[in-house]
Amino acid sequence: MAAIDVATMAAGIRAGQRRALARAITLVESTKNDHRQLANQLLGTLSKDAGDSVRLGITGVPGVGKSTFIESFGNYLIDKGHRVAVLAVDPSSSISGGSILGDKTRMEELSRREEAFIRPSPAGKTLGGVARRTRETLLLCEAAGYNHIIVETVGVGQSETMVSEMTDMFLLLLLPGGGDELQGMKRGITELADLILVNKADGDQRATANHTVADYRSALQFLSRKHQNWEPQVAACSAIGNQGIEQVWQQVQDFSSALKASGEWYKRRSSQAVDWLWREVSDGLLQDLKTNPALARQLPALQQAVKSGDKPPTVAALEVVELYKQLNQRQSS
Amino acid sequence: MAAIDVATMAAGIRAGQRRALARAITLVESTKNDHRQLANQLLGTLSKDAGDSVRLGITGVPGVGKSTFIESFGNYLIDKGHRVAVLAVDPSSSISGGSILGDKTRMEELSRREEAFIRPSPAGKTLGGVARRTRETLLLCEAAGYNHIIVETVGVGQSETMVSEMTDMFLLLLLPGGGDELQGMKRGITELADLILVNKADGDQRATANHTVADYRSALQFLSRKHQNWEPQVAACSAIGNQGIEQVWQQVQDFSSALKASGEWYKRRSSQAVDWLWREVSDGLLQDLKTNPALARQLPALQQAVKSGDKPPTVAALEVVELYKQLNQRQSS
Repeated sequence: MAAIDVATMAAGIRAGQRRALARAITLVESTKNDHRQLANQLLGTLSKDAGDSVRLGITGVPGVGKSTFIESFGNYLIDKGHRVAVLAVDPSSSISGGSILGDKTRMEELSRREEAFIRPSPAGKTLGGVARRTRETLLLCEAAGYNHIIVETVGVGQSETMVSEMTDMFLLLLLPGGGDELQGMKRGITELADLILVNKADGDQRATANHTVADYRSALQFLSRKHQNWEPQVAACSAIGNQGIEQVWQQVQDFSSALKASGEWYKRRSSQAVDWLWREVSDGLLQDLKTNPALARQLPALQQAVKSGDKPPTVAALEVVELYKQLNQRQSS
Repeated sequence: MAAIDVATMAAGIRAGQRRALARAITLVESTKNDHRQLANQLLGTLSKDAGDSVRLGITGVPGVGKSTFIESFGNYLIDKGHRVAVLAVDPSSSISGGSILGDKTRMEELSRREEAFIRPSPAGKTLGGVARRTRETLLLCEAAGYNHIIVETVGVGQSETMVSEMTDMFLLLLLPGGGDELQGMKRGITELADLILVNKADGDQRATANHTVADYRSALQFLSRKHQNWEPQVAACSAIGNQGIEQVWQQVQDFSSALKASGEWYKRRSSQAVDWLWREVSDGLLQDLKTNPALARQLPALQQAVKSGDKPPTVAALEVVELYKQLNQRQSS
């Protein structure tokens, strides 16, 4: 990466320059220490320019048609005069090498539009690391004037929770039909959803899709509400046929109106930011502890003692924390 | 507390002396630093004596009949030749002053039996603190020879997750009937349950209870499995009429047989211990950070900057961690 001037980069982002934005994201995703410092300067400079968008999380199993839906919905938004950024949180990307959104041909039309910005999932060793960079990229996109941010993820456990925690509204895409254990009905994922969409409601599958909608409407009665002022909705759509897309847009507007009117929207944003702060502090401390070379030599034995029941976890934990503090102190003397 | 000799106390606990156990729990619950050190010594000494029990978590809304159920089930276990300890995790106890299990008259018969040990919830400022002490008390009870540990909690959010993480099997008690949003069907709680019991299935309510059982059986189809080798069960019982109690015992045995045969039981215990270790380390670090007086003066402003969006959380978090490390280093010089 060529020499980086944070002020110039920030100005470029504010002016909506794609190249400046792309370079800034690369900076934010870098693990090099000096890049990290520049990234922090940049984020600090742009903090007042971020925040003014609707942040949408989208999940669903592979094959449900997420890309097609985002293409269809994204184009609809742009036709309405909006600017759309599409990001991804894919915990598998570091393992498989591939990544959701890696293949831009999956959103061919959208990726060609000036008002759209598509960014594949950052690679990363931990889901926390991937999520952190996506959160920061989200802020950069907002500063660049994208007023609708779509964060895509795949249905693998914790990633949904993370995406839900960085977005305002969460959409779950489902396929028509499904067996005893309805697809997508993974542990807790349905409870995160503000809007459930049964996609591929076209042709032969239309009737099945309507049944699935009814099934989920009744299943939702068994779950508690996520928001005081919003009852999760279930609807059918056909992303490929551009059917039901306008209705989705209506739901997004209804959702943001209801939550903004009650103040829940802003309260949630604040508490998301504070939660994020403490998670970062906690992760940062733990990271520093785990990468302390002197401590690293002693950790495996301690962990084994805990596993085998030889040492109660609380006792081992105190030893770890004390050791860490002593090592910190020794470092300075 | 009189002078404490850890070796004598440990010997008393191993011999199953109630008085030694009660004193040890008081020690573990103490927040004084020197008590904490003694508690750690004691837990270390007894670690090899703990672990040999069935750990059962039980939850349900107030009024569902948890105490009556535990009294009935506990007496049944003792009649079978077992020894039963009943603990509680009640996050509200520090606020209300009272506590579930505080009133032993709620389990009058059980509390009089030699083979039962009942301990109310420790008070504490944080749920994490309450849970930590209950985990340690659980180990002490095992060392004292109680081979069935029942950990009771109330249906308030996070406490169920914590109890589930310190137990082998999780029971959810429900009332017959219930409206659109079935009681107890709080966010995720149902997904933690290995056995759902519809209590008060007696007299007029018997038919309603059977309906509720059927409703939950069908609702469970929508949830994913917690264990590979166990499908959550739903049954009716009447704790006050001692009906269905034997069936519960059968389910507990089936559960432990299935999970022990597949090895999941032991794997889960190990990973619970390691998770607990890292949670303790993380909590310990964060606790040390938050109670650092020099840092405490600077935290509110930083937190406010994050809330208002002036400072991105990642940037603020790095500042907090760096500040903490510097303060640690300065302390030693």
